[in-house]
Amino acid sequence: GFVSLIGAGPGAEDLLTLRAHRVLQDADVVLHDALVPLEIVRMSRRDAEIISVGKRKGCHSKSQNEINHLMVEKAREGLKVVRLKSGDPMIFGRAGEELAHLRSHGVASEVVPGVTAALAGAAEAQLPLTLRGTASSVIFTTGHDLNGDHLPDWAQLALSGATITVYMGRTVARRTADRLVQAGLPSSTPVAVLENVGRSDTRRLVGTLADLETLGDEKKA
Amino acid sequence: GFVSLIGAGPGAEDLLTLRAHRVLQDADVVLHDALVPLEIVRMSRRDAEIISVGKRKGCHSKSQNEINHLMVEKAREGLKVVRLKSGDPMIFGRAGEELAHLRSHGVASEVVPGVTAALAGAAEAQLPLTLRGTASSVIFTTGHDLNGDHLPDWAQLALSGATITVYMGRTVARRTADRLVQAGLPSSTPVAVLENVGRSDTRRLVGTLADLETLGDEKKA
Repeated sequence: GFVSLIGAGPGAEDLLTLRAHRVLQDADVVLHDALVPLEIVRMSRRDAEIISVGKRKGCHSKSQNEINHLMVEKAREGLKVVRLKSGDPMIFGRAGEELAHLRSHGVASEVVPGVTAALAGAAEAQLPLTLRGTASSVIFTTGHDLNGDHLPDWAQLALSGATITVYMGRTVARRTADRLVQAGLPSSTPVAVLENVGRSDTRRLVGTLADLETLGDEKKA
Repeated sequence: GFVSLIGAGPGAEDLLTLRAHRVLQDADVVLHDALVPLEIVRMSRRDAEIISVGKRKGCHSKSQNEINHLMVEKAREGLKVVRLKSGDPMIFGRAGEELAHLRSHGVASEVVPGVTAALAGAAEAQLPLTLRGTASSVIFTTGHDLNGDHLPDWAQLALSGATITVYMGRTVARRTADRLVQAGLPSSTPVAVLENVGRSDTRRLVGTLADLETLGDEKKA
């Protein structure tokens, strides 16, 4: 038994790696997140067992404990298990918890990296994440540490020219903008909002920090 | 004429994406960095024109201006040009400068993202870059902003639990460790040094901030 944690990339069917493709084609069991495109799930063998383990609003989904348990159970049956995750497993993918669980149960594993959403978004929008003389660092964060009046430490980095990428940022858009302006960033600082990166329904909205909260709102209307 | 800036991934021949592979196979001209594995360069058509544009110590290499000029020249001949870069083009890859040059000369372009070294290193070493309750952000930097006694702003982020990844970090290893300890990080903080990620001669050394300068030194001896 063996478990491969695989990054399926951001949502396009051709943005997984050749290695991910090969390992997926060799799997006996595939446990996939709901965000992984069906076209990629279907790259597995016809007789592979396919298990959707969530997670999308309104869908049945398995808990992290159930996923952990299932991986160990299938591996102990001597099967080649693929745990297929959107983006890259090591960034906001809970791979750390899954690897720790496998290790503590003596199950061998590997990780196949993937293209994380920030990189795919930068490519689609042609917005470099670093630029000589302008941005020498880039931060990937969720913005979910923006509680209360606390100023996140990365606000300071934005001031010194780092690029900030906020994953799953819709619900924290207003707070993000407020805190960055509080930290001293001009409200005219350019921002881009990228939605469903890599998918056919992707949207790209460009504006300033002052607009951040309302960019993308027409969809809701 | 059309230019595709493609990320070839970190150095393994199977860590480029299916899209990168397809676009590369369709190219008339391939301008590649020296760090891109030959196995990947050879995925192009037999009759494609292959041009190595550097950059590796001691090798002949073209300047950024020459590369920019060459891309425009080949595109204007009506050719499909691939600019093949190691890792992901949008992180420390000077893609911003190349895209600006193409835009100012009216040449159409696209960017195909790739797996950047930090993600591949995390996968190989099974070290998650984010972990619930421990690290909610990750920073990609070169550490080349560590001039003089100036404390980089990202030292503060390390204190609040962010993961710091330093690209091309060998020459700044000592300064990085010194500044992080000055900022208040315990010298017992775990560090990993990853060399030639994705390649067969990759090396992985694990220690603490106190060892950072000397980790990996045996190679020099």
